[in-house]
Amino acid sequence: MSYAELDRMFYPKSIAVVGAKRPDPESDFAGMFGSIQEYGYKGHLYPINPKVSEIRGIKAYPNLSALPEPIDLIIVSVPAPAVPNVLRECAETGNKNVHIFTAGFKETGEPEALKLQKEIEEIANNNHLRVIGPNCMGICVPEIRVGTWTEPIKTVGPVSFLSQSGGHAQDFSNYAAKFGIGFSKIVSFGNALTLDSTDFLEYLADDPKTKIITMYLEGIKDGRKLLTLVKDINKTKPVIILKGGLTASGTKAVASHTGSMAGEEHFWNAFFKQTGATRVYSLEDMAHTTLTLLRMGETKGRGVAVLGVGGGVVVAVSDACSKARLDLPTFPPRMQKLLRSFIPSAGNMIKNPLDAYPIFFDIEKSFPQTLDLIYNEPSINMVIISLHMDWMDPKFVPKLASALPDVCRDHLKDKPFVVCWRSTRHNSTFKNTGIKLEKELLEAGIPVYRSFEHAATSLSRLADYHFFQHQQEVLIEGFHLKADELKLAS
Amino acid sequence: MSYAELDRMFYPKSIAVVGAKRPDPESDFAGMFGSIQEYGYKGHLYPINPKVSEIRGIKAYPNLSALPEPIDLIIVSVPAPAVPNVLRECAETGNKNVHIFTAGFKETGEPEALKLQKEIEEIANNNHLRVIGPNCMGICVPEIRVGTWTEPIKTVGPVSFLSQSGGHAQDFSNYAAKFGIGFSKIVSFGNALTLDSTDFLEYLADDPKTKIITMYLEGIKDGRKLLTLVKDINKTKPVIILKGGLTASGTKAVASHTGSMAGEEHFWNAFFKQTGATRVYSLEDMAHTTLTLLRMGETKGRGVAVLGVGGGVVVAVSDACSKARLDLPTFPPRMQKLLRSFIPSAGNMIKNPLDAYPIFFDIEKSFPQTLDLIYNEPSINMVIISLHMDWMDPKFVPKLASALPDVCRDHLKDKPFVVCWRSTRHNSTFKNTGIKLEKELLEAGIPVYRSFEHAATSLSRLADYHFFQHQQEVLIEGFHLKADELKLAS
Repeated sequence: MSYAELDRMFYPKSIAVVGAKRPDPESDFAGMFGSIQEYGYKGHLYPINPKVSEIRGIKAYPNLSALPEPIDLIIVSVPAPAVPNVLRECAETGNKNVHIFTAGFKETGEPEALKLQKEIEEIANNNHLRVIGPNCMGICVPEIRVGTWTEPIKTVGPVSFLSQSGGHAQDFSNYAAKFGIGFSKIVSFGNALTLDSTDFLEYLADDPKTKIITMYLEGIKDGRKLLTLVKDINKTKPVIILKGGLTASGTKAVASHTGSMAGEEHFWNAFFKQTGATRVYSLEDMAHTTLTLLRMGETKGRGVAVLGVGGGVVVAVSDACSKARLDLPTFPPRMQKLLRSFIPSAGNMIKNPLDAYPIFFDIEKSFPQTLDLIYNEPSINMVIISLHMDWMDPKFVPKLASALPDVCRDHLKDKPFVVCWRSTRHNSTFKNTGIKLEKELLEAGIPVYRSFEHAATSLSRLADYHFFQHQQEVLIEGFHLKADELKLAS
Repeated sequence: MSYAELDRMFYPKSIAVVGAKRPDPESDFAGMFGSIQEYGYKGHLYPINPKVSEIRGIKAYPNLSALPEPIDLIIVSVPAPAVPNVLRECAETGNKNVHIFTAGFKETGEPEALKLQKEIEEIANNNHLRVIGPNCMGICVPEIRVGTWTEPIKTVGPVSFLSQSGGHAQDFSNYAAKFGIGFSKIVSFGNALTLDSTDFLEYLADDPKTKIITMYLEGIKDGRKLLTLVKDINKTKPVIILKGGLTASGTKAVASHTGSMAGEEHFWNAFFKQTGATRVYSLEDMAHTTLTLLRMGETKGRGVAVLGVGGGVVVAVSDACSKARLDLPTFPPRMQKLLRSFIPSAGNMIKNPLDAYPIFFDIEKSFPQTLDLIYNEPSINMVIISLHMDWMDPKFVPKLASALPDVCRDHLKDKPFVVCWRSTRHNSTFKNTGIKLEKELLEAGIPVYRSFEHAATSLSRLADYHFFQHQQEVLIEGFHLKADELKLAS
């Protein structure tokens, strides 16, 4: 599949929806045609339905042959038994980019449906159709408002998502967008008739608008190709993967869902070890990880400093760090002495974790002073700032929120940092203060989490990613040396 | 420590706050004295402060000797160096129940503070004082509105919490109360000068108002005693424990927090194996686990049926179940055939997980029919109901919410079940519908979670608890048999 061919599909100048329906009189729901229209697509949008003359004021066409121009993306939303004929029509009219929304093929496991899948596979292959699906939601490109589901996200950005589940395509992009993560391309590719994850990967590898690739996989067609591709792409664009159906029960569910054979756990263990791709375990986990990989630069090690408020809380953050295989080096005595010079002893811990309420309300002086000391301490590579809203005066938090991004960037310089916060009080003032802080920090590009575990795990993934890259460099250097040695020996 | 002695402390007819302060003119904050007053304590409350004649209209006394009656609970809130004298006064006036809020002792690690801790320890031991703390928030008994922190929860119920962290005492009770979990006693015991976790455990074991005991431990004084007690109590009252500072970094943080030596991981592994106590890994985890153990009865095995909405979602729920060591037995062919008789094939999975949107909107007929089939299937012991709000018509959800508790109880009978839900759409209607559903179900006593992982983990813990109990019975039976055999042989 060439880059240009898929690019035309992702940036279609024209879209036809075969099986477009008039809106439901009660709910005004008008299926995929309606969704694309409501999203605000500015290209030529054609409803295909022989039984109506127009849909929502747009002229309807009886079939593909009747259309006035070639179509960059055909969306098929007719009952399964009618799909083969639509594909034949696509081939006859020279429209090769097809998204089949319709379900009821391989994933059902039923003989009639398997026969039908075989039939459409033959038509597609014989006519070199580029088919997304069947049994999927297709593509979403927020930049040009192409999207087939209800209320797709509008946040444009450098993350792309390839998903074998249509629901996950919606859920992940919705959830991630709440962290300010913007998307370039979202693809729900279902049963993967002709276009599989690897085809989209090749495209995204070259897509200048994609910087991070996230994936939800149930099954794969060509494991070796996927491994080679991911290994290569991951060097420049982090690839973050959620594998569904790893376990016996999940595998069974996958078979019913997209008709895939979920791979064995030992294959996937080797896959992640060899490619250096980042493995995550839920959609939420994927969003949290993406946030830190997107916002923070390289880390040179796993040493973390925890700055927080509250004794029990910083013990919990420390335990979360250790569980995430991060180190919490004790600050050296000289640094502790310097911290003690401006942080009072009573109720404050200064060894790392640093539990020091007063510094958070002295954002001009003792807070940046603390960050300077951390920046200058070589055993510390990253920072977690843990804020317990219930114990902070809500009046002072907005000041902290607006100053924190710049102060942290100015004083920690290249050392990655994330923020986490908590509020459990039933008085909503504290939670609302936290939500405002979170919003302001996220808008300023700071990763913010509501759970210590998510903060620690995300930094751990960042460290894993950069360690793998660095290790690769070392290996390549080692290989060069060997080649030199061989040369010398010959 | 006798039950009666501690019971007097937990149900005090009189409380004196030594070091009570007048409210801050700006914030109206009046420390512990103010908190107890605002909470609505109905017993005799005495502020002790030689410098003022009254606080918030209540007559202040210069010292303990001046009080008109013996005091059931003395709360000490004076600077650390003044604490020894207050304790001597307690001894002289015969008031033996003391909560020392003041910090600045062992936990600082500083020589002067360690000396001070030794001094108060001697006074307490020589005079048989029952001391909670120092460095802690003391007790909270919602039933009689005793509580020293700001806005303690008001939900009365059968759960008690022993915590070495004052912050955790507040956070856990606040968080758990949002799930409708009510509390009998909450104890923040800090440095554990004379009263340690084991003293409180002995009391709670006999407390008729405590059915589940939750604990946050950093260090322990007498591991053997704790093990023996927990092993015994757990047979009738589930004991759920979060151990802080297990890891190297956490241990370090613990030392600075409550001056405890956090135990070794191998000790704790053996501890949980031998006692059968439920181990959790965060406060949130503890609340989620408590919810299911509190609301659901015995399970006879680890077989789970998942009923849900959405292909990708049920794969995720299945994977979460497997990760939590639960089984998802495939429904037997006969059962599948019966399900197929009322669940259409297209878009619905019926093998377990069961992904069948239509049944949730046929709560009178096909939903209970499905539950009956599950109830009659012996390989299924528990049920997870997974609801994706974004794909459900918000108009129909309230009907589902109000019918679900009774329908599930009537048709699943004794088989435990939990609900989880998700909404990621940015249109808040769906999330608000979920929040209302959650509220109604929680009020009806149904465990509800916003994460598949929490739902699966909670059922797994329920299964672990009952398996351990059953295993113990088998062991005891085995022992009896042996005794009989010995008798026969002699």
